[in-house]
Amino acid sequence: MTWDILLTDCRAATMAETGKPYGAIEDAAVALKDGRIAWVGARADLPAGDAKDTARLGGRWVSPGLIDCHTHLVYGGDRAAEFELRLKGATYEEIAKAGGGIASTVKATRAAGIDSLAASAAKRLTEIAAEGVTTIEIKSGYGLDLENERKQLAAARRLGEMHPVTIRTTCLAAHALPPEFAGNSDGYIDKVCTEILPAIAHEKLADAVDAFCEKIAFTTAQTRKVFETARRLGLPVKLHAEQLSDQGGTQLASEFGALSCDHLEYVSDAGITAMAKSGAVAVLLPGAFYALRETKLPPIDAFRRAGVPIAISTDHNPGTSPTLSLLLMLSMATTFFRLTPEEVLAGATRHAAKALGLQKSHGQLQTGMNADIAIWSIDRPAELSYWFGGNPCGGIIQNGAWVKKCA
Amino acid sequence: MTWDILLTDCRAATMAETGKPYGAIEDAAVALKDGRIAWVGARADLPAGDAKDTARLGGRWVSPGLIDCHTHLVYGGDRAAEFELRLKGATYEEIAKAGGGIASTVKATRAAGIDSLAASAAKRLTEIAAEGVTTIEIKSGYGLDLENERKQLAAARRLGEMHPVTIRTTCLAAHALPPEFAGNSDGYIDKVCTEILPAIAHEKLADAVDAFCEKIAFTTAQTRKVFETARRLGLPVKLHAEQLSDQGGTQLASEFGALSCDHLEYVSDAGITAMAKSGAVAVLLPGAFYALRETKLPPIDAFRRAGVPIAISTDHNPGTSPTLSLLLMLSMATTFFRLTPEEVLAGATRHAAKALGLQKSHGQLQTGMNADIAIWSIDRPAELSYWFGGNPCGGIIQNGAWVKKCA
Ligand SMILES: [Zn+2]
Ligand SMILES: [Zn+2]
Repeated sequence: MTWDILLTDCRAATMAETGKPYGAIEDAAVALKDGRIAWVGARADLPAGDAKDTARLGGRWVSPGLIDCHTHLVYGGDRAAEFELRLKGATYEEIAKAGGGIASTVKATRAAGIDSLAASAAKRLTEIAAEGVTTIEIKSGYGLDLENERKQLAAARRLGEMHPVTIRTTCLAAHALPPEFAGNSDGYIDKVCTEILPAIAHEKLADAVDAFCEKIAFTTAQTRKVFETARRLGLPVKLHAEQLSDQGGTQLASEFGALSCDHLEYVSDAGITAMAKSGAVAVLLPGAFYALRETKLPPIDAFRRAGVPIAISTDHNPGTSPTLSLLLMLSMATTFFRLTPEEVLAGATRHAAKALGLQKSHGQLQTGMNADIAIWSIDRPAELSYWFGGNPCGGIIQNGAWVKKCA
Repeated sequence: MTWDILLTDCRAATMAETGKPYGAIEDAAVALKDGRIAWVGARADLPAGDAKDTARLGGRWVSPGLIDCHTHLVYGGDRAAEFELRLKGATYEEIAKAGGGIASTVKATRAAGIDSLAASAAKRLTEIAAEGVTTIEIKSGYGLDLENERKQLAAARRLGEMHPVTIRTTCLAAHALPPEFAGNSDGYIDKVCTEILPAIAHEKLADAVDAFCEKIAFTTAQTRKVFETARRLGLPVKLHAEQLSDQGGTQLASEFGALSCDHLEYVSDAGITAMAKSGAVAVLLPGAFYALRETKLPPIDAFRRAGVPIAISTDHNPGTSPTLSLLLMLSMATTFFRLTPEEVLAGATRHAAKALGLQKSHGQLQTGMNADIAIWSIDRPAELSYWFGGNPCGGIIQNGAWVKKCA
């Protein structure tokens, strides 16, 4: 056997469910071939073979490449001016007048060309990916009409051509009501279901469909229509659910076999039971919790008891979570939500893969899985959430090829 | 006139008190010579002159190099294992048994050699400095006897030889009670005042003296002895004050003309009045606030009304603030403390310089000041606290020389 790359002299947090914390292997070897993991295990058990490239990692830890499973990375402009106005004590009216809120992002996104959208997102992607993130989900939802939702998703796809990171796209046309439909949310949902989603699906621009089910967004009845459309089009669904109040969105999403329900501060016991039955992942977003100074915690213990897998993501967006670090989200998930270092790392690997429907190929170091690997200059995996604001990522392999070599 | 470096095509957040937000100059030029700022102003007013090196910055912002004015950067080991144990629900006894708490850091620091202390701190310094930090304060306080306090401070001085960053050292021998003085804190303070501080001062290992005045550390009477010793030795003082309770440490520190009082969640109105009169800087430490899940806010509005300058720092330490990002502290100071983006940038430049007694030479872009400059790939200064977890630092100049050139 000739491998493309052989990693030795390393410790592996495989994140496989082996019964050991982190699925850890203390003195490990990982062999890669044709973009996949050809072998992973204790170095002593490594079968005979050659490697074109052998990397001795000096005792560093390796883990699956991180997965950021919920972002709104592609948009025009930013909201730094609004952020500053608010801290200087501006009233809601003053901010609205200065062009604040999601409406300003919709306006800037509609005004931007696809090249400019891809270029601004590429800068942000470079920062996020530098921390060993090898897969990222990107939602639309600032276009809110066919032309602009299509443009946002096409920009996300183009990012995947500019950057080695694997990109999964989600159509979130049901994110907010566009100004031209003010007072007519049913009319807009009708447009989403009859015009936007069918075209996006036909053009294969989205890997999934998402919606924002909330008092300030869309009702469960409207969300149901979106999900029925997605089902008809053969696309899996996800849901922004119970962030500000309990709308029963989790139950609805579970009925449609949703990949994930996201936010969930206000989810009910019935919602958790439904998620546990359907296998939906709970995606928690500590960046928005932080920036909004939320105090209502998602019910972590109830998720644990029910066996609902928990993922952690940046929710990168210009309004409520302008963060550029998934590792910082792991720290915040330990500090704010009291998740353990092992839980948060599973939340950015194995469970995040499941939230994207990629659990068979991503999020674990297992034979046959995609060779996406992050290499860490740390002494124990807990350091990934213990330090905050740093980046211990020493090397990155994407699809079996070096993106960043260890120094 | 021939300058060493000329920066043009940039916007300058000079942080000088010009009446304009950020002391901003929209179309600026900055000329550097012999490690100092030779000229700064509107490009249109730039006097005739040549430059050996002209850098056109494409509209980027420049600011004074950031100053991290309160850290415990030099220590042995880390506390990631304890962090994980605690999140897994270990009891206080279990953690103590596993060697947790500050005692474990004292033990590891005493066991480490100076080379190893400098090497581990250098890795952390490299991460912090990558964000445009050009001056950092480093405290001792994990040695707690002459030999080991000396070793910690010497390691900090050595860091300054390994790394371009300007390092200011502070002797914090009165940080905690060493195990060999259990039950005899007066005896330890006596040792600090008669043995440790005089030797450290004689060897010029410290630029200032600090103490931890708190129920779990030292009384105001003991702190007074430390400050009297410092005064006798000609060293300025600083104080860890009113973090967990109001001990009146700020009044005491103000009596001794302290450079700064740090933490301050529980400071009283009388303490603030004393600080305002004496000119002490209030150093706020959002990293510890975050990691300890503190809910008691420092009295920001009272500081503002009294005209007490506010600085922001990482408080980097392995127990309560293992952060590697001063920019993240700026974000946290806006989010947790509701400081404005301009206030937090002043807190990491002009006011941080004052907290180190460097206000005449550091922390502003002004003619004659040290040529420490950070260059930012941003459109407005508020972005430095708006994004969190990223690093928009595009270039760094330290003492008039490039440390990192803009791409
Ligand atoms: Zn979202
Ligand atoms: Zn401190």
